[in-house]
Amino acid sequence: MSAQVSATPQFEKMALIGFGLIGGSIARAAREQGLAGTIVTTARSAKTRARVTELGIVDAVVETNAEAVKDADLVILCIPVGACGAVAEEIAPCLKPGVIVSDVGSVKGAVVKDMAPHLPGAAHFVPAHPVAGTEHSGPDSGFAELFINRWCILTPPEGTDAGAVERLRAFWAALGAKVEIMTPDHHDLVLAITSHLPHLIAYTIVGTADELAQVTSSEVIKFSAGGFRDFTRIAASDPTMWRDVFLANKEAVLEMLGTFNEDLSKLTRAIRRGDGEALSEHFTRTRAIRRGIVEIGQDSAAPDFGRPHAQLTRKPG
Amino acid sequence: MSAQVSATPQFEKMALIGFGLIGGSIARAAREQGLAGTIVTTARSAKTRARVTELGIVDAVVETNAEAVKDADLVILCIPVGACGAVAEEIAPCLKPGVIVSDVGSVKGAVVKDMAPHLPGAAHFVPAHPVAGTEHSGPDSGFAELFINRWCILTPPEGTDAGAVERLRAFWAALGAKVEIMTPDHHDLVLAITSHLPHLIAYTIVGTADELAQVTSSEVIKFSAGGFRDFTRIAASDPTMWRDVFLANKEAVLEMLGTFNEDLSKLTRAIRRGDGEALSEHFTRTRAIRRGIVEIGQDSAAPDFGRPHAQLTRKPG
Repeated sequence: MSAQVSATPQFEKMALIGFGLIGGSIARAAREQGLAGTIVTTARSAKTRARVTELGIVDAVVETNAEAVKDADLVILCIPVGACGAVAEEIAPCLKPGVIVSDVGSVKGAVVKDMAPHLPGAAHFVPAHPVAGTEHSGPDSGFAELFINRWCILTPPEGTDAGAVERLRAFWAALGAKVEIMTPDHHDLVLAITSHLPHLIAYTIVGTADELAQVTSSEVIKFSAGGFRDFTRIAASDPTMWRDVFLANKEAVLEMLGTFNEDLSKLTRAIRRGDGEALSEHFTRTRAIRRGIVEIGQDSAAPDFGRPHAQLTRKPG
Repeated sequence: MSAQVSATPQFEKMALIGFGLIGGSIARAAREQGLAGTIVTTARSAKTRARVTELGIVDAVVETNAEAVKDADLVILCIPVGACGAVAEEIAPCLKPGVIVSDVGSVKGAVVKDMAPHLPGAAHFVPAHPVAGTEHSGPDSGFAELFINRWCILTPPEGTDAGAVERLRAFWAALGAKVEIMTPDHHDLVLAITSHLPHLIAYTIVGTADELAQVTSSEVIKFSAGGFRDFTRIAASDPTMWRDVFLANKEAVLEMLGTFNEDLSKLTRAIRRGDGEALSEHFTRTRAIRRGIVEIGQDSAAPDFGRPHAQLTRKPG
């Protein structure tokens, strides 16, 4: 399968603030697709900047955010959502008129609230969230294919220049993503259930397993193929990013958590009472959702996510 | 990586009661490894029996459990745990003296309690649980590599013939599994946290997502790559099998659920209070568990479980 690109959006200079999984993947894919004349990056730590320089993917690695955004016509903040407000304030005086400023945060309401007041009127603010990722982080973790067939959600504030929205849409399409536009509030509700609550639950159960008195950690690890290991993947995601997500999308997460707790109580009651029929009915219904996800290409149809299996050696004789 | 087999356990006739994911995988692997002279299978439904005949993996497909176990020196029940007691009662009069009777149930205390009273003294009862599986079920879902590098837990009742235990151990080792022996009670606690609770949580959250008023099912499916899709895999597992697991391991599951709920309340409180430090600390700790699982080869080190990614076509010009 390959993503077809009909029109090439071109940016003379793209600045990436942050070079983790998402920033690094944007840089790699934009380079491969020739979407930007120059790609300039910065990162908070000297260690990351040194590593990005070594990787040789971008044209320049600079020390400050101000220097990075200078003359850029596309600026993307690829940093934890809690840091976006301060960076917007910092870069605002250095932005070129007509620049598109965007981000990749997993929460949109809080990011818009934190960033928008700082940005000058001559900048086009088009918040974005590519719904893609892996459990790995850091400058080496990115790859050009990360966004292919994934959705990227744009949440432009009312009155945003339509041309700027279209240019950013075309940019994400060229990275392989399907683009959808919605309000920040609706985005935050959708992501609360499809991403934030799953992460919270995974973080919880992995912590629970780690602290049990009756079952050792080593047993938990050994016998994890019974289901537990699936949860450990997302519970290995970047801690700072996720701390910020829960703080920034508190209300929607707490609301979804309330519904989840009610549903868990119902299933718990069915187990306690030995109500096999209620359990069967529930377990049959949830199968259909998996089918829907596989059918629209949002997950692999291969069993066990297509995890590799070793081969048995046929013993001689 | 290949599993080395040092000694070949041989059974003249192996009978499999049930031919779903696990029974079908045992049949395929045992055939490939030449572990049984004859493999005879039965299944409850005529449709499954017809399909197993078509598949041509086993030597004979028979209509009744009694006929299947006749003259067998290894009998394995590959059926939901709730059905094991009745089948043990049914086959007991037809068992050959010296036969090894085993199962593959995900709960061991209840299975031992249900089966043991029916089995004749001349049969060796060695309960087993291969900790392996996929979300698929039915006669076509099995494959010979399923058990490679996975653990198989044996829970022989006190006083079980050591030779019989050793023969079954060697059988599972030949299928590629690592074998561990423990008590049924300890098994049920270990699996409650590593398998049963994760399935319950996954079933719950997938159900919750399906019933929301504010977010449509189609949105849940579209944006599932943010984490949710990981949960849908195990929530697509066989409903009957899982109904029986929760009914049979009620106490251990409820106990683990209690601990999980306490931990979830703690994290919820941290979110409500905006306690970023508590969140960070927790999220950092859970990363280590994933590393442990990958290090001992119980999951893939590849990002995102090694899910495949499409390629971007470089646009011309």
